[in-house]
Amino acid sequence: MSTNKKIQFSKKRTWSHDLPISFLMQQGVENPGVLSLAAGLVDQNSLPAGITKQAFDELFTDPRTAKEALQYGTTAGSLALRSLLLKHLSRLEQKSVEEIGITVDNMIVTTGSQQYLSLLGEVLLDPGDICLVAAPTYFVFLGVLQGLGARIVSVETDEFGMRMDSLEATLAMLDSQGQLSRVKMIYLVSDYENPSGVSLALDRRKQVVEIARSWSREQRVFVLEDLAYRELCYDGPVVPSIRSFDTTGETVILTQTFSKSFSPGLRVGFGVAPDEVCAAIRDKKGNDDFGSTNFSQHILATALRENLYYDHVEYLRTVYREKRDCMLQAADLHFSNIPDVHWVHPRGGLYVWMTLPDGIETGFNSPLFQKAIHEDKVMYVPGELCYAVDTGRGEKEQPSIQKNHMRLTFGVQNLAGIQEGMQRLANAVKSFV
Amino acid sequence: MSTNKKIQFSKKRTWSHDLPISFLMQQGVENPGVLSLAAGLVDQNSLPAGITKQAFDELFTDPRTAKEALQYGTTAGSLALRSLLLKHLSRLEQKSVEEIGITVDNMIVTTGSQQYLSLLGEVLLDPGDICLVAAPTYFVFLGVLQGLGARIVSVETDEFGMRMDSLEATLAMLDSQGQLSRVKMIYLVSDYENPSGVSLALDRRKQVVEIARSWSREQRVFVLEDLAYRELCYDGPVVPSIRSFDTTGETVILTQTFSKSFSPGLRVGFGVAPDEVCAAIRDKKGNDDFGSTNFSQHILATALRENLYYDHVEYLRTVYREKRDCMLQAADLHFSNIPDVHWVHPRGGLYVWMTLPDGIETGFNSPLFQKAIHEDKVMYVPGELCYAVDTGRGEKEQPSIQKNHMRLTFGVQNLAGIQEGMQRLANAVKSFV
Repeated sequence: MSTNKKIQFSKKRTWSHDLPISFLMQQGVENPGVLSLAAGLVDQNSLPAGITKQAFDELFTDPRTAKEALQYGTTAGSLALRSLLLKHLSRLEQKSVEEIGITVDNMIVTTGSQQYLSLLGEVLLDPGDICLVAAPTYFVFLGVLQGLGARIVSVETDEFGMRMDSLEATLAMLDSQGQLSRVKMIYLVSDYENPSGVSLALDRRKQVVEIARSWSREQRVFVLEDLAYRELCYDGPVVPSIRSFDTTGETVILTQTFSKSFSPGLRVGFGVAPDEVCAAIRDKKGNDDFGSTNFSQHILATALRENLYYDHVEYLRTVYREKRDCMLQAADLHFSNIPDVHWVHPRGGLYVWMTLPDGIETGFNSPLFQKAIHEDKVMYVPGELCYAVDTGRGEKEQPSIQKNHMRLTFGVQNLAGIQEGMQRLANAVKSFV
Repeated sequence: MSTNKKIQFSKKRTWSHDLPISFLMQQGVENPGVLSLAAGLVDQNSLPAGITKQAFDELFTDPRTAKEALQYGTTAGSLALRSLLLKHLSRLEQKSVEEIGITVDNMIVTTGSQQYLSLLGEVLLDPGDICLVAAPTYFVFLGVLQGLGARIVSVETDEFGMRMDSLEATLAMLDSQGQLSRVKMIYLVSDYENPSGVSLALDRRKQVVEIARSWSREQRVFVLEDLAYRELCYDGPVVPSIRSFDTTGETVILTQTFSKSFSPGLRVGFGVAPDEVCAAIRDKKGNDDFGSTNFSQHILATALRENLYYDHVEYLRTVYREKRDCMLQAADLHFSNIPDVHWVHPRGGLYVWMTLPDGIETGFNSPLFQKAIHEDKVMYVPGELCYAVDTGRGEKEQPSIQKNHMRLTFGVQNLAGIQEGMQRLANAVKSFV
């Protein structure tokens, strides 16, 4: 006896269908011989097994500390960890804790920084509210915004990140349309942006805070600074965060994660926000899971306290620097003889952003993607996923979503895999030029 | 220069203010000498430090398995763990995996079962949609429903759990009000309900599935079965789950957690649902955190695979049985001479539900709560938190929210703490009779 009655899902359920990340993962599963330059995993071999063991052993030698790690934590996260995170930020910002001007109460530990991004969206955005993003930007966050029914408005970028003149122009346009009261935030991956590899220039970091403030006419416009790749810097200057220019701490909300710099399996990220926002996120998180895993937090706190973490990050930089160089060399070797193909040389992060000649599309349904995955056995992330669809405009009025880019990552493959993958990819591309 | 512009939060933010759980935790922090019979923590001393170490050592002896645990997992959770969860359910249901009629694809691993409850609410409930609950019921889930803007409608209970005649009558009432199309689910903690300690009688488990089906006229009405306390059974018969009566698997959604039976610090729970619901939850979780901690999942999978888990649960039952008996004996000793005070003898779980004489209120602002916390130095959960406010009715039309109950837990205190706490509480109560 089947009732077979239709399930009536919530309205927001319809906004989070068919996520590209699921499609990508599915492709990986269905095509086992495929070399993935797409997967956002980190380098398996350099994962901190030894350090985690050291931290675990230290925690579990004393039954008291072991049992604390196995008990419930609090919704905002372990106080010991949050205190260490303050010091961590102080070290990264090269400022004293006092100069940074935040306390542990401004911090919430989350299940990766992804959960922080999602929680912030939940507490700030009603359907139709506006978030400004770079074009291109982190496509998984675009999925979050879409799932909340938010309107996503893209801002032009160049080799120094989001263009401040375009940002001003976009805000002015929204104002003239009577939409300024709906603008809640400007999202920026300021260091080694996923996917473009570009970092926001120093002068723009200061400007964006001023711009957000000056347009906070009807309600506060936040800058959401995603520093997921901050610590994966391989060469060139390390630039202060956008947040460091927010002297009152009212405008910038910052998130970071230990997924890239330590272990994604621990799922520990965190965010820093003004008190009111922090309270809102804590309340929502209280309902959602009343706290991320305490066990992981205790492991990470031990690794941070003993400086094991910092040694590991140093090591990781040498590993990824070599892998980045390997991918850039392979690009030189296999792509430099293909006309009108160019790519960014990132100074950090995990991605190389490659641009193909104008007519060559890279999307899931493109001949290139299909040939690459089925014949050449290589996979990349189509660049078009990283450009937002603005639901405030008609289909034909979309600001040109660029379709001829690929996001390549040197994170997960070893050196041989990177070289082989780049050769396969060049083969695929050559069929279309 | 402060912009000081007002923050415009999302509408749903306003629905999750002032959670009672935060107030309770705050009271604990602010009154350090207070013995808490309120905190929902588990027994600290019996946490599985040794078993976790054994599982960890096994995982980390081999760098390959260590690094798998430290890498990203998938949104739905570790496949190895989900396969073990199938066997786990099969063991608990005393049926073969085939008889249970689910696969790993019906399962999603979450950050405690709390996250499963919250995700399910997100994908099913629009503001104004209706969830039926027992009166009293798990107050944290009431917070989740409130945070989603759902309407909560209470159904009467007796010593066998939710009354099926009241459930029918409530559904008929909602139908007559044209609200049947908004009824999305019936929430039940079927074993040793938090807070009442009552289990749903066997015949009612079958009936509730039939009732949900027969009222699935306009869209599917789900039964959400929360089996958080299932394995904490101390005596008396173990009853099959509600889900075991759902022959087509279309009506009942089941959640369980390892927070009570193993370690809340690992934050591993899971849920079982029909395919379509599972897909919706996976999509939402993909946006929210793309997977709970993989590390914890690998530890738990190892403990389950090696049967370390089952030995621990056996041990835990003896620990909690003794603590429950201790609390019941202390109740006999200190409360049996106070007229019109009675309490439930739970056969499992972590709670003793105590009823005071009609006129004695127990809420946060009641003289009893204030005296208990400030003078007698003991804390409980006011029973009224466990009764839903129906936003579909006016303030004066609320079905009598009962104000003379206390939820007491024997989870966190040791035997001496339980005895002392009960004595203090009796002192407080005696001042008001």
